[in-house]
Amino acid sequence: MGLTMTEKILAFHAGLKEVEPGQLINARIDLALANDITAPLAIKEFRRLGVSYVFDPQRVVLVPDHFTPNKDIKSAEQVKIVREFAREQKVIYYEVGRMGIEHCLLPEEGLVGPGDLIIGADSHTCTYGALGAFATGVGSTDLAAAMATGECWFKVPETILLRYYGTLRPWVGGKDLILYTIGDLGVDGARYKALEFTGEAIAELSMDSRFSMANMAIEAGAKNGIFPVDEKTLEYIRGRVKRSYQVYTSDPDARYAEIREYDVSRIEPQVAFPHLPENTRPISQVGDIKIDQVVIGSCTNGRMEDLRVAAKILRGKKVHPEVRLIIIPGTQRIYAQAIEEGLISVFIEAGAAVSTPTCGPCLGGHMGILARGERAVATTNRNFVGRMGHPESEVYLAGPAVAAASAIKGRIAAPEEVL
Amino acid sequence: MGLTMTEKILAFHAGLKEVEPGQLINARIDLALANDITAPLAIKEFRRLGVSYVFDPQRVVLVPDHFTPNKDIKSAEQVKIVREFAREQKVIYYEVGRMGIEHCLLPEEGLVGPGDLIIGADSHTCTYGALGAFATGVGSTDLAAAMATGECWFKVPETILLRYYGTLRPWVGGKDLILYTIGDLGVDGARYKALEFTGEAIAELSMDSRFSMANMAIEAGAKNGIFPVDEKTLEYIRGRVKRSYQVYTSDPDARYAEIREYDVSRIEPQVAFPHLPENTRPISQVGDIKIDQVVIGSCTNGRMEDLRVAAKILRGKKVHPEVRLIIIPGTQRIYAQAIEEGLISVFIEAGAAVSTPTCGPCLGGHMGILARGERAVATTNRNFVGRMGHPESEVYLAGPAVAAASAIKGRIAAPEEVL
Repeated sequence: MGLTMTEKILAFHAGLKEVEPGQLINARIDLALANDITAPLAIKEFRRLGVSYVFDPQRVVLVPDHFTPNKDIKSAEQVKIVREFAREQKVIYYEVGRMGIEHCLLPEEGLVGPGDLIIGADSHTCTYGALGAFATGVGSTDLAAAMATGECWFKVPETILLRYYGTLRPWVGGKDLILYTIGDLGVDGARYKALEFTGEAIAELSMDSRFSMANMAIEAGAKNGIFPVDEKTLEYIRGRVKRSYQVYTSDPDARYAEIREYDVSRIEPQVAFPHLPENTRPISQVGDIKIDQVVIGSCTNGRMEDLRVAAKILRGKKVHPEVRLIIIPGTQRIYAQAIEEGLISVFIEAGAAVSTPTCGPCLGGHMGILARGERAVATTNRNFVGRMGHPESEVYLAGPAVAAASAIKGRIAAPEEVL
Repeated sequence: MGLTMTEKILAFHAGLKEVEPGQLINARIDLALANDITAPLAIKEFRRLGVSYVFDPQRVVLVPDHFTPNKDIKSAEQVKIVREFAREQKVIYYEVGRMGIEHCLLPEEGLVGPGDLIIGADSHTCTYGALGAFATGVGSTDLAAAMATGECWFKVPETILLRYYGTLRPWVGGKDLILYTIGDLGVDGARYKALEFTGEAIAELSMDSRFSMANMAIEAGAKNGIFPVDEKTLEYIRGRVKRSYQVYTSDPDARYAEIREYDVSRIEPQVAFPHLPENTRPISQVGDIKIDQVVIGSCTNGRMEDLRVAAKILRGKKVHPEVRLIIIPGTQRIYAQAIEEGLISVFIEAGAAVSTPTCGPCLGGHMGILARGERAVATTNRNFVGRMGHPESEVYLAGPAVAAASAIKGRIAAPEEVL
């Protein structure tokens, strides 16, 4: 019986020839990540363990991205804990001004390669599956133990194989495919399973679109999402990844819990209605929904492709007078590149607020919080009750094309409506 | 006996031929301003007055700049009150993405002209004196009454004449002159008086430097700060100011409470130590003061000249690894222009976080709050206890040149040290 990519990565890191779904293993990790919300907790637990040093300072990464630049004294104190720990332990730390949203930043910095086993005290750590790595979110306590030992326990997940075929429609990107998929699976449809994204339509997708899809695997309840490594992957990591890496492929006779196929030529741009990512509708079925704010950014859609798509739609247009459009490049490098390509000028000319990289509004942190009764279209990954602010506010999830078009129209709109 | 500029403006708006210091007058106002902190209070008071409409919607300006893009639910609710009032009353309102820091924005938008009488529910409303207007901060209740009636009570201030002569040293700008002046006068040295800034060195100053100086008149306790109108003023307002305006000049025999003269060739770049703007020292006397953060921006120094000076120093350099440098353009237009001139790319390349326009850190609002024990150099206007965050943090006020040099060195530094 063959193995899936996910099983092979876990087996290798556990020092085993093979593993099977349900098996409990102790595996060596390649990277442990935490942010300004989770790192202070992990550091506290780490201290309790009585260990002096982290297992390998080059394999521990701390990114203060959620409430930075610090929104208040409390967040400033939290980041100070992280910064001081980073200096003491000499682990990898990205300071405000030299950072980015963690899940945009780590691949860009070459800290993630194919075949890696990565854990992060953040649920969207699954993003790195786009590079053919096994990556998953863990709690701060598990992260603390992993920082000390370089190992972590896992239960090997079953894998659901997703196969996408056909040709993408205009303005449909990875975000639309993953929203559609979550709509199909449901938010617990892949609970503790691996999602393996394959098929000719996936091969056509850019890396940015793949990151966007892998990022939301957790929104179907998945343990991880993973993509085959192809030329695009290798091109992306070339010159970035300094560590050795290993490309794994699923065996033809690998065991899958389930196989689902999607004809992408039938998938319109998607919108997930409040208050769950599974509440998806094609843009043609959305109806007349007035909005107050649009957010383009986050670890889901704050990359170059997203900004380019948004700029294509916003160029020469004006944001609707009753809408705030907030655009947040995922990293400093993306920000610099977007300036270079003239995209930021397009956004400002259109009447958008462009922020320094931060998770900010996505989690109701800062930089665009909603008041009672307000509605936002966001390229982020969660639309739970109160996610972006007031418990009586609403978030509609979409890709950058729908988000940009909606900012112009003042209601949820298709890109074709403004072009 | 002649009159000062300030007296002439007040007399005209009170419908009087002349006024004298100490006299109580009721004067017509040209513009009433409030922000997201003060407008909700003013609106509440306005409702209590039982008036249906503001006196003139084109003379009431509301700018949500302090906690925007909204930092939390509370600030979102506050801005919502302002936005809804603005829509109802059809007053001038600048939305997130189309705005700026109020005192950078209003002159840029041509809402302020020479000879105007302007009140704002913000202490730094005195900024507009740079254009030869009488501008002063008022409480929210006074502002509410003014929004209803178009009038406000004033006690005519005495005037202190400040005369600056000599040639500016390298890297010395308006901010250094005003810090030096406040160091000389003390924070209550001009209490309820007008500061009239004159002399050959003032004539040489750019408008941006003049805004920077007028902005801090309140930090010496002044009722207003005012500059003679010259070719530079007229050049600045050309094409911006649509309303008619009136140029006033002080009579040669005008009465002054006091006259002070400053030889600017003796003034080094200045730093105001915690916790008062009057605690100024020349940069050569600062000593070795390690810092954690630098903020370049605010209604004092968030203009083009400031960003150009900062970029000149930061170009090709890197921010010290233990320092966060936060740069905040004063308005969207300044932001766009700074991109156009390549300044933002210089900042990002140097490792700075560049924010959308906001008052943010200046008042401990958001976007760079200090933790306990942290020190910041800021181009802002106040360094009171806890102004930028924790009560045990410290703020050192300086101009953009010292701020940028300090960001590179990791301690308060002179521009010459990094060039």
